Amino acid sequence: MTFAALADPTRRAILAKLVTGECSVTELAAPFEMSLPAVSKHLRVLERAGLIARGREAQWRPCRIEAGPLKDVASWAEGYRALWERRFDRLETYLQQLKKERKHGRKQPRGK
Amino acid sequence: MTFAALADPTRRAILAKLVTGECSVTELAAPFEMSLPAVSKHLRVLERAGLIARGREAQWRPCRIEAGPLKDVASWAEGYRALWERRFDRLETYLQQLKKERKHGRKQPRGK
Repeated sequence: MTFAALADPTRRAILAKLVTGECSVTELAAPFEMSLPAVSKHLRVLERAGLIARGREAQWRPCRIEAGPLKDVASWAEGYRALWERRFDRLETYLQQLKKERKHGRKQPRGK
Repeated sequence: MTFAALADPTRRAILAKLVTGECSVTELAAPFEMSLPAVSKHLRVLERAGLIARGREAQWRPCRIEAGPLKDVASWAEGYRALWERRFDRLETYLQQLKKERKHGRKQPRGK
């Protein structure tokens, strides 16, 4: 549910805006040049995924970002850290090897 | 594209399996009790998102997990770390406050 909600770039942009503080639907709609119903639809998806919570005030209903699911996404992706570090190390070793070979390759013609 | 590909639990399970090493489609299909075409469809989504790469061997076409997009997801979610740490700190302060009040509330009736 979290990943599906995050799949839309507008919804990720809404979260990026909400990290600065609570916003009304009108405030959220402004930078995206979207209609209020279109923004409301995105907010419903975010709310269902637990990524935002909405206030009870009938008139304003401010949106608030929720940290939990974002922390879960970070933990999930961090589970693959060993993978990308291993790949990076292998690349690093390969580049060092190339560098050494180039240095060696250059010195020999000059020396002899 | 990455988030949409990750939205399906089967595709996340496929990645979890691939982190242990390259696999053929048949090897991937076995634990999920899925048909080969169904697995192939998931693999195409993962491949389009750059989350896996497939070998060129016509017969075997082994699947390999790609680290890049997973690292990007981790970096993206880590961008919200300040948010959940702030929320956690606030909760911690609140709990400490409650504890202090409880301790204080208990001692007074006993003392006087």
